[in-house]
Amino acid sequence: MASVTMSMLEAYPKSINLDRAKLAAVVDTLNSCAQACTACADACLSDDMVAELAKCVRSNLDCADVCTTTARVLSRHTGYDANVTRSLLEACATTCRSCGDECARHADRHEHCRICADACRECERACRDLLATIS
Amino acid sequence: MASVTMSMLEAYPKSINLDRAKLAAVVDTLNSCAQACTACADACLSDDMVAELAKCVRSNLDCADVCTTTARVLSRHTGYDANVTRSLLEACATTCRSCGDECARHADRHEHCRICADACRECERACRDLLATIS
Amino acid sequence: MASVTMSMLEAYPKSINLDRAKLAAVVDTLNSCAQACTACADACLSDDMVAELAKCVRSNLDCADVCTTTARVLSRHTGYDANVTRSLLEACATTCRSCGDECARHADRHEHCRICADACRECERACRDLLATIS
Amino acid sequence: MASVTMSMLEAYPKSINLDRAKLAAVVDTLNSCAQACTACADACLSDDMVAELAKCVRSNLDCADVCTTTARVLSRHTGYDANVTRSLLEACATTCRSCGDECARHADRHEHCRICADACRECERACRDLLATIS
Repeated sequence: MASVTMSMLEAYPKSINLDRAKLAAVVDTLNSCAQACTACADACLSDDMVAELAKCVRSNLDCADVCTTTARVLSRHTGYDANVTRSLLEACATTCRSCGDECARHADRHEHCRICADACRECERACRDLLATIS
Repeated sequence: MASVTMSMLEAYPKSINLDRAKLAAVVDTLNSCAQACTACADACLSDDMVAELAKCVRSNLDCADVCTTTARVLSRHTGYDANVTRSLLEACATTCRSCGDECARHADRHEHCRICADACRECERACRDLLATIS
Repeated sequence: MASVTMSMLEAYPKSINLDRAKLAAVVDTLNSCAQACTACADACLSDDMVAELAKCVRSNLDCADVCTTTARVLSRHTGYDANVTRSLLEACATTCRSCGDECARHADRHEHCRICADACRECERACRDLLATIS
Repeated sequence: MASVTMSMLEAYPKSINLDRAKLAAVVDTLNSCAQACTACADACLSDDMVAELAKCVRSNLDCADVCTTTARVLSRHTGYDANVTRSLLEACATTCRSCGDECARHADRHEHCRICADACRECERACRDLLATIS
C-alpha cells in the first residue's frame, strides 16, 4: 500500500502544496485505520457480548467512513483548497480520538480492540502532524 | 427518500439527542447534495472544455464523499458523541461552501453547475443550522 | 432527492445509453435503500438483543455500501461500460435480496427491520428491472 | 497496511469461511487498487489534455468505489453469505478489467496510468483467484 500511494504521488505531474512523503505516510495511516475499524466493528459484532460493545461498533463505523473520506480528499491535489483539507483533518483527528478512546476501554479483553485503538491513536497523531504543516 | 429517512428515525427505539424532524431534513439534504455533486463531476467530465472545469470536478468529488460520510454519521444515534458530530458538520459546511463557490462560477454556462451550486448552498445552511442546536 | 437526481440527469449535456427517467428512479431507490440500511444497522445495534441481530447488522452494512457504490456508478455516464453496470447491478440485486431476507426475519418484532426489508425488496426489483433493459 | 489487515483477521474470534492469509492479501490488493485509482483520476484531471482522459477518470472513479466496497464486504465475516461475496467479487473483477484496459491505453504517456493499470490487473487477478476458492 505504502508503495502505491508514494508512487502515485511521485507520478502526479503538477506541484503539490504539501510534502509528498509526509502526505503518503498520512494517507497510508488513514487507510490502515479505516481497515482496522471496519474489521473491529465486525469482530465486536461476532462477540456474544456485543451488547456491551455497541458503542464500540458505532465508533468504528464512523471512524472507518471518516478516515476513508479523508484519505480520498488528501489524495486529490488538483484545485487544492486548504480550508477543506484543514477542517477535514480536524474532524478526522476528533473521530480517531473518540474511537481510540472507546476501543482502549476494551483493549485488555479484546485483541481486535487493542490493535484498533493503536491504529486510531497513530492516525489521530498523523492528522494533527499534517495539520501543523498547513498554513 | 425523505420518507424513508424520517420513517427510520421514528422507528429508532431509543432516545436521540437531536430533533428527529430536523435531523431527517439534514440527512436528506446531505444525500441530495452528494447526489448532485457526483452527477456534476460527471457532467463536467463530459464537457469538451473539461480542462476549465478541473477544479470543479475535484470540489464535486470531495463534496460527494464528505456529504455521504456526514449523512452516515448523522444516521447513527447509538453511542452518540457530540464532538464527532460537531467537527464533521463543520468540515461538511466548509466543503459545501468551497464546492458551492466553485460551481457558482460556472452556473451561467452550465445548468448542472447551477443546480449543484444550489444544492451545496442549501446543504451548507442545513449543516450550520444543525450545528447551532448542538450544545 | 428525486428531483435533484432527475434534474441533474436532464442537465447532462451528452447522450445517455439508458432511459433517463428509469435511471433516476433506480438511483433514488438505491440511495433510499442505502439510507434505510445504515439506519437499520444502528437501530439493531441499539437493541438489548443485538446479539440476535448480528447477522442483520452485517447485511445492512454490506447493503448500504453496495447500494451507495451502485448509485454512484449509475450516476456516471461519461465513458459508459455496459459490462461494469451490468455486473454491479447483479451484485447489488444479490446483496439486496440477502439483506431483505434477513430483515424480513425480524420484521414482525422490529419496525426498522420491516421498513428496511421493504426498501431492500424494492431496490432488488429496481436493479433487476434496469438490468433487463441493458443489452 | 498488510500487517493491520492480517493482524485484525488473526484477532477475529470466530471461524472464517475463507483462508485468512489469502483473504488479507486480497483485501490489501483491493485497498491499494482503490488508492491508485483515486490518485490516477486526480492526476488525469490535472493534465492539460484531460479531455482525452475523461473516460479514464470515470473508470478510475468507478473502480475506486467498487474496490473500497469489496474490501469492506470481505473484511466482514459475521453472518457470511457466499452469494454476496461471489457476486461482488465478479463485479469487482469486471470493473478492474475495464479500468485496467482504459489505463493501459495511456500507460506509455502517463506514468500514473501505467502504475494504475498494474494495480488494476493485479486486483482483477486477486478477485478471480479468491472467487475460485468459494464453493
